[in-house]
Amino acid sequence: MTIKSMNDLFLHTLKDIYYAEKQIYKNLPKMARSAKSSELKRAFEKHREETDGHIERLETIFDQCGVAPRAIRCDAMDGILAEAKDIMAEIEDGQVHDAGMLAAAQTVEHYEIARYGTLIAWADQLGMKEASKLLGETLDEEKRTDQLLTRLAEANINQKAA
Amino acid sequence: MTIKSMNDLFLHTLKDIYYAEKQIYKNLPKMARSAKSSELKRAFEKHREETDGHIERLETIFDQCGVAPRAIRCDAMDGILAEAKDIMAEIEDGQVHDAGMLAAAQTVEHYEIARYGTLIAWADQLGMKEASKLLGETLDEEKRTDQLLTRLAEANINQKAA
Repeated sequence: MTIKSMNDLFLHTLKDIYYAEKQIYKNLPKMARSAKSSELKRAFEKHREETDGHIERLETIFDQCGVAPRAIRCDAMDGILAEAKDIMAEIEDGQVHDAGMLAAAQTVEHYEIARYGTLIAWADQLGMKEASKLLGETLDEEKRTDQLLTRLAEANINQKAA
Repeated sequence: MTIKSMNDLFLHTLKDIYYAEKQIYKNLPKMARSAKSSELKRAFEKHREETDGHIERLETIFDQCGVAPRAIRCDAMDGILAEAKDIMAEIEDGQVHDAGMLAAAQTVEHYEIARYGTLIAWADQLGMKEASKLLGETLDEEKRTDQLLTRLAEANINQKAA
């Protein structure tokens, strides 16, 4: 890691979220297969398609910066996904399993929301208008996914109460 | 991990965030010492005092559940804090360093916001009114801390622009 300027920090964090998005893309099919509720399954499948778009947007921004897209290991996302895998492996009961999976997915979304919020502020500071716009489109999708997960969690809870 | 019911899942996640809060409490003094801006230093110091209160609230909830407080390793928070340590160790320039630290602290806050949001929904489902209220107080403090960090990040950026 050689970070001397805001530009270096921006690129470093772009590589971090590029790694994170690729790991999410790789893990979402397992999460969709593991989900017991068909709505949760569909939410994971839809988010995988969106994640493909997030990766493409990041590659466009690398290109705009004149550097080749490169992922650097993101310990945070590795840790978050390790927790999701534990939940998938350990819980048998359908409703409890899905509640745990939903919660794990919301920690994924919140990591991304924090990262994209930061990257947008830095892109604005660095005068990277096009990058800021692309990052904003992804941030909106991450927030919508988090809201959808909240609605599914409430439905899961209401189903139990019924 | 033996999770068979929503109650087990609630307790498991309580132990996860208990570990996370203790790690944050342990790391905040290093983060405060490392911050170059006096406002960021004060924000970390203030958040350490709040974190002490968050730990106490969690211990009260363990007590209400009739179990001894116990932390279980939270891979996500370990990963998030590992990234913060890298930033602290690697960046020399004051403004770039603080921008990286602010961003790392916001990933900490967002993990906690996701976790407390989930725990409140589950406490409500389980009819744990007092626990839900305590968790809500902590969630409000985490959100306010995230907003304060955003304001400091903007001030950091404006300072650079000046």
